[in-house]
Formats: sequence, C-alpha cells, structure tokens
Amino acid sequence: MTITKKIQLDTNGNCDIIDITQQISNEIEGSNLETGIVTVFVAGSTAGVTTIEYESGLIADIKLFFENIAPQSIHYNHNIRWNDGNGHAHIRASILGPSITIPFTQKSLMLGTWQQIILIDFDNRPRSRQVILQLIGD
Amino acid sequence: MTITKKIQLDTNGNCDIIDITQQISNEIEGSNLETGIVTVFVAGSTAGVTTIEYESGLIADIKLFFENIAPQSIHYNHNIRWNDGNGHAHIRASILGPSITIPFTQKSLMLGTWQQIILIDFDNRPRSRQVILQLIGD
Amino acid sequence: MTITKKIQLDTNGNCDIIDITQQISNEIEGSNLETGIVTVFVAGSTAGVTTIEYESGLIADIKLFFENIAPQSIHYNHNIRWNDGNGHAHIRASILGPSITIPFTQKSLMLGTWQQIILIDFDNRPRSRQVILQLIGD
Repeated sequence: MTITKKIQLDTNGNCDIIDITQQISNEIEGSNLETGIVTVFVAGSTAGVTTIEYESGLIADIKLFFENIAPQSIHYNHNIRWNDGNGHAHIRASILGPSITIPFTQKSLMLGTWQQIILIDFDNRPRSRQVILQLIGD
Repeated sequence: MTITKKIQLDTNGNCDIIDITQQISNEIEGSNLETGIVTVFVAGSTAGVTTIEYESGLIADIKLFFENIAPQSIHYNHNIRWNDGNGHAHIRASILGPSITIPFTQKSLMLGTWQQIILIDFDNRPRSRQVILQLIGD
Repeated sequence: MTITKKIQLDTNGNCDIIDITQQISNEIEGSNLETGIVTVFVAGSTAGVTTIEYESGLIADIKLFFENIAPQSIHYNHNIRWNDGNGHAHIRASILGPSITIPFTQKSLMLGTWQQIILIDFDNRPRSRQVILQLIGD
C-alpha cells in the first residue's frame, strides 16, 4: 500500500538545517502501515535531505564543509546566466541529493539513537519548502 | 506491484550529463500504476544519478565542481593497478551514488518545476549505459 | 510484501570499507520475493553506504578522497563540544548518506559486473554496526 503525505516548511535559506524526524515519525504513526519504507523527497533543486546527529556543533561544521567544497562567492556560470546568485546552492543540492529512503518497523523509524533526518536549504533566501513522504509497506 | 523498465543510453563519457526525466515520466504514464515510487538505478561503477535544474550554466558548473573535488589528473591507485585512467570516475560515481528514489502520484513525478533527473557519466570514454527503473506502487 | 532483515558487522572504523554484496544477495535469495527493491540502511550517524568497484586501489583512493574533502585533523565544533574526535566522521557520513536502494529481479541484484555494495565506517574507533535491509516487492 502507498500513502502520500506532505510536510510544509518555511526556511531561512543560506544552509538552514531543519530536523524533520518528528514530523516523519508522526506521519508513520498516524498511517495504517506497520512496516515498510518512507521516501523523503524535497521538491526543488536548491535543497537536499540526509541524516546527521542534530547538535549545534555539527550543524555549524556541515555549513563550513559545504562552504569549503562549493563556496558561495566563486564564479558560477549559472549566476551569469540567471543573475540570482544561487549557483552554489544548486551544486550543493545536487551532490547531497533530494531524497533519502528509510525503513520502519512496528511504526518506528529504524534510525540510530543520535541520527536525525534533516532538510538543508542551500538557497540564498528564505523559502517555503514542500517535503513529500511516500510511505510504502504493509 | 513491482514493474521493471530499462532505459538504454549512449553517452560521451567525460562528465556527460543527460536529462532522463522525460523517459522516466513516459514509463510511469505507460504503466498501470497511479501512485508509488520509482527507483532510478544505473548499473556500473563510473556513473551516477541525481537531480538538477537542467540548464547549460549549471551543467558547466557541476563539471567544474567534480573536477575540483576529484581531479582527473591526480594520482589514483586504481590507475596504477588497471591502467585505464578512470580512477576519478569511480570516486565521483561512488560519492554521487548510483540511485535515486522519486515519488509519483496520479502518474506524475513529484518534481519541482526546475528539477530534472540526470545521469552523469564520469567515465573517460563513451559508454553504453543501462538505467533500471523499478516502479513500486498501486 | 515487506521483509526486514539485519546484517551485523564488526568494523575497524577509520574509513574501514566492507563489501556487503554477498550478504544482501543471500537475503534476497532466501526470501520469497522474486522482484522488487532492497533499501540498505545503516543505523548511526558516522557510517554510510554506496557502491564501488571493490578493489584495493580504489579502496585506498576513496579513503584519500574523504581525507581530502573532510580532513580528520582540522577544527570541528563537534569535537570541541563532545571531545570524541569524530567530527570528520559525521560530516563524511552525512554527505555520503546512510542508505541506498537497489532493484532486483529473478532474485538477483541488478548491479553492474564490477559494482559492489559497501559500508564505509568513518568513525575513529572500531564499531559494531547494524545494517538494515528492507525488501519490498512481489
């Protein structure tokens, strides 16, 4: 059985990192599925999803990491073409990826104790984001 | 229900970036599924899949990005061992990942407006590629 | 139908790279599914999964790659906060991602000939790891 749920989020952009674990857990608990997978997918090409230990040190570290591998201020052909200044955001989002698939059993996400699901909004301005949860299972 | 489809592609290698969104959309429309997920998987260890805004500026930018984080011309132990000169391609493919899973409803991929599904062929020569689409849903 | 399996692994940490392809193949063969997807998910925030050509040259190369993009010895706010010295491991794990989804048909993983599924344990000490396999299909 397939169940589609959506989470609406307002972000600050600029590498804003939001813990969406609880909202995903709630949707699984509220469904009639016991066991399966949830595909967490962000529509849009300047945000991505992954897991992390959600604590302030690592949140700062991952922002520094992305600034290091795809700096905001270097030349991007995208910026020349569209003049919107978010070339770095597109590159970061493509390398991180827009989706993650996580198993659940007995209505619980099978995450580690210090493992949270996060959305990173790389865009250079506040955005309203739609995260799609596709639940498949029994 | 599970439905397996395959897309055959000829690439130029060398970071050739191919938009495969339409072919995936067509396979979903041609199936008897309304809602579910499609796992897009490239067989092989020198290519990967992700999403991007498919425009020429970003296509150039992402090639520069990969050349920056895993340059073609530096030392790779793989190249010493096999002498095929594609060590960079393997590293890039492993970090990007060979698969992506995307939800669909009412026979439509739930992508953003400027979000396309791409194959990147990192190998250092033209390749024939098989992309597997595993559709699961109702 | 959804089937949950678990693989228990002892790693050496420090970028230990373990080929888990055979164990995943065995679980698919031993199941009553013919066709579907397997989501391979590692619980924990300092390990990741991907595919690679599993040969000693590339195993050395990918360790060098991660040391290059997220060095162990630079400053991490996480290390200041927790004093456990594994900030680099968290960053590497988040960028690689904790899961991969792979299609199978006729009880066989649809991998390339030189494409193996690996766990990379980025933590700075030996760890016992649980890899979850969520099989969905028919």
